[in-house]
Amino acid sequence: MNTPMEKKKDSPPPIYWIADYLTPSDIYYHAVHEIIAYRKTRYQEMLIVNCGTLGKGLILDGVWQSSSGDDFIYHEPLVHPACVNHGGPETVLVLGGGEGATLREVLKWKTVKRVVMVDIDEEVVSACREHLPEMHQGAFDNPKTTLIIKDAVKYLEETKGEWDVIISDLTDPIEHGPSFKLFTKEYFEKCRAALKPGGFFLLQAGPVSLPSMKMHVRLVSTLKAIFKYAHSYNIHVPCLGHPWGFILAGDRPIDTLPEVSRVNKLLADKTSGEFRMFDGTTLLGLMQNPKHIRDAIEKETYVYTLESPPIFSTQEIPK
Amino acid sequence: MNTPMEKKKDSPPPIYWIADYLTPSDIYYHAVHEIIAYRKTRYQEMLIVNCGTLGKGLILDGVWQSSSGDDFIYHEPLVHPACVNHGGPETVLVLGGGEGATLREVLKWKTVKRVVMVDIDEEVVSACREHLPEMHQGAFDNPKTTLIIKDAVKYLEETKGEWDVIISDLTDPIEHGPSFKLFTKEYFEKCRAALKPGGFFLLQAGPVSLPSMKMHVRLVSTLKAIFKYAHSYNIHVPCLGHPWGFILAGDRPIDTLPEVSRVNKLLADKTSGEFRMFDGTTLLGLMQNPKHIRDAIEKETYVYTLESPPIFSTQEIPK
Amino acid sequence: MNTPMEKKKDSPPPIYWIADYLTPSDIYYHAVHEIIAYRKTRYQEMLIVNCGTLGKGLILDGVWQSSSGDDFIYHEPLVHPACVNHGGPETVLVLGGGEGATLREVLKWKTVKRVVMVDIDEEVVSACREHLPEMHQGAFDNPKTTLIIKDAVKYLEETKGEWDVIISDLTDPIEHGPSFKLFTKEYFEKCRAALKPGGFFLLQAGPVSLPSMKMHVRLVSTLKAIFKYAHSYNIHVPCLGHPWGFILAGDRPIDTLPEVSRVNKLLADKTSGEFRMFDGTTLLGLMQNPKHIRDAIEKETYVYTLESPPIFSTQEIPK
Amino acid sequence: MNTPMEKKKDSPPPIYWIADYLTPSDIYYHAVHEIIAYRKTRYQEMLIVNCGTLGKGLILDGVWQSSSGDDFIYHEPLVHPACVNHGGPETVLVLGGGEGATLREVLKWKTVKRVVMVDIDEEVVSACREHLPEMHQGAFDNPKTTLIIKDAVKYLEETKGEWDVIISDLTDPIEHGPSFKLFTKEYFEKCRAALKPGGFFLLQAGPVSLPSMKMHVRLVSTLKAIFKYAHSYNIHVPCLGHPWGFILAGDRPIDTLPEVSRVNKLLADKTSGEFRMFDGTTLLGLMQNPKHIRDAIEKETYVYTLESPPIFSTQEIPK
Repeated sequence: MNTPMEKKKDSPPPIYWIADYLTPSDIYYHAVHEIIAYRKTRYQEMLIVNCGTLGKGLILDGVWQSSSGDDFIYHEPLVHPACVNHGGPETVLVLGGGEGATLREVLKWKTVKRVVMVDIDEEVVSACREHLPEMHQGAFDNPKTTLIIKDAVKYLEETKGEWDVIISDLTDPIEHGPSFKLFTKEYFEKCRAALKPGGFFLLQAGPVSLPSMKMHVRLVSTLKAIFKYAHSYNIHVPCLGHPWGFILAGDRPIDTLPEVSRVNKLLADKTSGEFRMFDGTTLLGLMQNPKHIRDAIEKETYVYTLESPPIFSTQEIPK
Repeated sequence: MNTPMEKKKDSPPPIYWIADYLTPSDIYYHAVHEIIAYRKTRYQEMLIVNCGTLGKGLILDGVWQSSSGDDFIYHEPLVHPACVNHGGPETVLVLGGGEGATLREVLKWKTVKRVVMVDIDEEVVSACREHLPEMHQGAFDNPKTTLIIKDAVKYLEETKGEWDVIISDLTDPIEHGPSFKLFTKEYFEKCRAALKPGGFFLLQAGPVSLPSMKMHVRLVSTLKAIFKYAHSYNIHVPCLGHPWGFILAGDRPIDTLPEVSRVNKLLADKTSGEFRMFDGTTLLGLMQNPKHIRDAIEKETYVYTLESPPIFSTQEIPK
Repeated sequence: MNTPMEKKKDSPPPIYWIADYLTPSDIYYHAVHEIIAYRKTRYQEMLIVNCGTLGKGLILDGVWQSSSGDDFIYHEPLVHPACVNHGGPETVLVLGGGEGATLREVLKWKTVKRVVMVDIDEEVVSACREHLPEMHQGAFDNPKTTLIIKDAVKYLEETKGEWDVIISDLTDPIEHGPSFKLFTKEYFEKCRAALKPGGFFLLQAGPVSLPSMKMHVRLVSTLKAIFKYAHSYNIHVPCLGHPWGFILAGDRPIDTLPEVSRVNKLLADKTSGEFRMFDGTTLLGLMQNPKHIRDAIEKETYVYTLESPPIFSTQEIPK
Repeated sequence: MNTPMEKKKDSPPPIYWIADYLTPSDIYYHAVHEIIAYRKTRYQEMLIVNCGTLGKGLILDGVWQSSSGDDFIYHEPLVHPACVNHGGPETVLVLGGGEGATLREVLKWKTVKRVVMVDIDEEVVSACREHLPEMHQGAFDNPKTTLIIKDAVKYLEETKGEWDVIISDLTDPIEHGPSFKLFTKEYFEKCRAALKPGGFFLLQAGPVSLPSMKMHVRLVSTLKAIFKYAHSYNIHVPCLGHPWGFILAGDRPIDTLPEVSRVNKLLADKTSGEFRMFDGTTLLGLMQNPKHIRDAIEKETYVYTLESPPIFSTQEIPK
C-alpha cells in the first residue's frame, strides 16, 4: 500500500527507557515496550511494564524491583536458605514482598501452616495481584496466606516470639521512600523479638557489586550487632544489574558448609513444587562469598540506626 | 545525619527517558523528572510530565506533542499566518489541538466571534485542562469557545462553507493512532468544503529537517492538488527536535512577501494580548523557505490518499 | 552455516555514541558507526567518524563540528551573506575552518583573488584533507588558497586593512579549548582593524535555541560595541541539534530586506558552482529573526572581554 | 571571573559512551571520560579509555574486555582453579590475554618455570604494556615470561604434550574478529594435544546470564566431546555486565568439592603475592553452579565445529 521507502520497520525501537545508575559512569537502561499499569499511591510511584526479553517488570519510585523473566533467581535464594536452616518452618512472616512471589516460594514448604504478608501499600499489592499473575501464581488466594496492609514496624510491635522465619523483602531505603527506616538496628531488634527461639531472619540487603556494596556490608555489621550469627550471600539477578545481596541471621549457627545430599533430601521431604535454581549444590555455592567481600565485611563496624540510617545511593569504588 | 560518603547528591539524575529517533543514528532523549498524569484512553496513550528545562510536556502514543516552555514557538506560527492572510477571521475551526494552546492563540484575534475545537479524545482534553493551565490559559472557558468531542471527519461532514480559518492541529499519522487517515486528499477536500469563500486552511505538517522531510513535502503536493495555493514554512521547536512544518492553503493568493509594517498594524488593530515570537518581521522570515526545501517541494508529485496514506517514520537522508 | 537462533542481525546496533547535552534534560546522542580517524593533537582531541544517516562527522574536544550530510546548511549561510553584502569580495580571510568547507564556499565567488585560511591545528587540517574530501572538495589545492598554520590572534597582528571579508569559523569557546579567548571584544577589534574599509566580518556564533542562546545574544552585544552594524541570523543544522547562529558585522549598513531578484542576479553574475540552500529568497528569510530572539538581543548589554570571556555551556531556559 | 550564570559545572557529564547490548531491551552504557589510546590494528579496533568508577578499560572491536578496577574478579578465577587442580604447574601457556593480567596471575605460582603468552596482535599487546601497567604489573618483563606474536592455531601446531596448564583467554567470537574459529572442537583438540598428561585446559567462555548463556552452554558441550571432564563456573564481573563463564577441562577428575583448608595450604605453600578474591572458600563457591545453569548444560548436545562455529550475539531468554 505504501511505497517501499515508507515502509514501517517490523519492530520499532523502544521509546520509553528507565535508567539504573549502577555507578555514575555505568548506566543500565531498561526498555519499556508497554506501560501496563501506572499508579501514584499514597506511598510511592508504581509502574508495571512489559520490558521485553525479561518479561514484565515492577518499578517502585523509579527503582527496578523484579522481572517476571528472572524473578526465580531472586525469590528462591530469598526464601529457601532460611527455611533449610530452620529445617521445617511452620509460621513465616513476610515484610513487604508486594509481588506475591515471596509468598509463592514460602508456600512450597509443606511444613508451613501460616504465612502472613505485611505490606504498607494496598494499591501496589492489588496491582501486582491483577497484572503479575506469573509472579504470585495464586499465592494470595492460598488458605494459609494472610495479607495485612500495615506499616511493618507497627505490625512488629504486636507480634512477639511467633515466627519460625521472618523475611524482610522491602524496597531499598531511598529517601522519602516508605522503607527508609526499616534498615536499622531498631527495626532488626523488633524482628528478632518477633522470632520464635531458633528462628531465622532474612534480609534483602542491596547490591553486592564491587563499586556499590557499602550498604550491604554495613547491614551485615548492623545485623551482627543484634543476632549471634549473620551470613551474607548474593547472586546476580539480570534485571537488577548487580549481584544482589541477602543476609541470613539468627541466634542458632548457620550451616555454611551444608551437605548437598542432606539438603536435597530435606527439600524432597518437606517441599512440593519445582525449584528452578535452588537445591543443595546451589545452597553450598551461595554460602561461599568471594574473599574480597568477606574481607570488606570483616573490616566494617558501622551500625545503621534511626539516627544514622542508610541512604541508598551509588558509591565510588573502594581503593 | 549521614556520613559524608553517603550523602545524597543534590539533584539525582533523571530515571525515566523518552527517546525520539530523529534518524536511526540520531536519538533525542527527553528526561522525565516527574510523571504528572498517565492515561490509556480509548484512542491513545497519554503522558503529561515534568521534563525539566522545557517545563511540562505532553506525549501521545510515545510522540512528543509540545512543552510548556517552548509551546509559543509552535502555536504562534500555527495560528497567526492564516489569520493575517485572512485579515480578520470571525469563525475559526480547530481540529485536534488537545492542549488548548491553539485556542489560546486564536482568541487573541478580537475579530473572532466563534471558535470551535473538535477533538476525538475527551480524556486527553480533560487531562490537559487540569494539568496544563500554562498552555490553555483558560481558553476552554472563554465564551467564544465551543469544545466538541468528536471524530474530525464526522464533524466535517456536517459543516459546509462556514469557517474563515480552519486549523488542523492533529497528532502525527502513526499507524493505529487516531489521526492515521487525516493527512489525505479526501480529508483535505472536506476541509476545503467547510471553508467560507476566501478562507484559509492551515495544516501542522510534520518535521522539515533534511533527513526527515519527505512526509512534509508530500503533504504540500497533496494540498496543491486540492487548493489553488499552498505555501510551506517551518520553525525549529526545541522540544520537537526538528524544525516543524506548517502548510497554509487556500484559494486566495497567499502573501509570501508581506510588508512588515502593514502586518504589525493589522496585529495592533485586530489582536489583543502579547505575542512572544510573532510579528511582521517574523512572518516575512517564515514565508521564505531555504532553496533545498523549495527544490524538494517542486520536484514532488506524490498525493496522499486513503488508499495510500502517509506513515510517519524516520527516513534516510536523500542523496 | 549457523542455526537460525544464532544468526547475526543484519545491522547490529551502534556501539559508540556521542552525547550532546542540549540542556541538562535533553540529550542528543549521535551514533558512531565507525571511527575513521582519531588524533590527540597539541591543541585538541579530534575524531572523524561515520555517523550513519548524516554521513561523516568531525568532532573536536567532544563537540560536534559538522557532518558531510548537512554541512551545506551550515557553510552556505556562513559565507554568502557576508559576500552578498560586500558585493564582490576579492580578498577573504578565514580564521579556523578546519574542514575546508568554508574555503570551498568562498571559492564559489569568481571575484575572489586570494583566500587565506589560518588554522592553529595542522593535524586537524591534514586529517580533514585526507578523510573529508566530500567537505573540502579540493579547496585546499586551489591556486587562490593559502593555508597558514598559526594562532589567529598572532596572524591578525600582522595584517591591517587587507580583507574584504573575514570569516571567523572557530570552535566554540570551551574552557582549555584553543578558541577560548577568540570570542571577545579584544579579538573582534583586531578583526575590524584587518578589514578594508567597507569590509564585513562574519562570526560563527553558537546555538540560538530558546534554552541556550545567551552566549549568542551576548556576542551580538559584544560585536555592536566594536562595529557600527551587527545583524544576527540562524538556521537549524541537523547534526548540531540546535539552530545555529551567525553574526554579520561591519561599518557599512547591512541589507536586512534584500531584494530577492537583485541577490539572485548578483549570484548569477559573480559566482560559479551550485548552491544547495542559498539564494535571494533564502537570504531574505535568514535576515528576519523571530521576535523573541530580537527582544533578547535588544535587552542584552553584556560585552565579552579577555577579562570576562564566554564559557560555552548549557543554560537554563529564560523565564 | 565569569558571572555565576555562566559558571562551568564542576564535573561535566561524559560525552562518549559505549553501549553493551545485554539483550535487545537491556543496554549497559559505559561512560568514556577520556580516550587514552586508539588503534586500528591489522586484526581489530582497540580503545583504551578512562571509564571513571571502574578505572581504565580495554575495548576490542567494540566489546569491553576488562577494567583495571575490577580485573581481579575476572583474572583470579581465570587462572587459579586450573592451577589448584593441577597442584603445581611448571609450564603454562596463555593464548590471547593481551592485557598481561593473566600472566600476572600465572606468575604468582612459584612452581611455574616458564609461561608463554601467544597473542596475534602485537599492537594491542604493546599498547597494553604502555598504558595499562595497573594490569600487567610488569609481568611481560618477568624472566619466566616469553611473549610470542602469532596466531594461536599456528602455535598449537608446533607444541605437543608440553604444558601443565593452558589458558585460552581470547576475545569473543564475533564475526570478522580474530577469534572467530578458536571456539571450536578442532581448536580444543589442538589444545588437548598440547597438554602434558594430567594437564588442565581453561577456557574464558562467555556470559552466563539467563538471557545470554547459550554459547557458554554449548561450549561446555563441545569441551565434553574432547576432554573426559569439563566443569563450568562463573562470576559476575561489573564491567562486563553479566556473570562471566569459565570452563575447566581435562582428562583427570576436577575437584568440585575442594576442601577449603587444603586449598588454602596449597596456596600458602606454592604461591606468592596477594589474592584479592581467590582462596579455598571462593573456589568451593565457584565450583557450585545454580541448578538452572546445570540443567541447561545437561540438556545441551550441540558441538561447535569449524563448520558451525559460534557467533557471539544476544539471544532471547529461554521459555
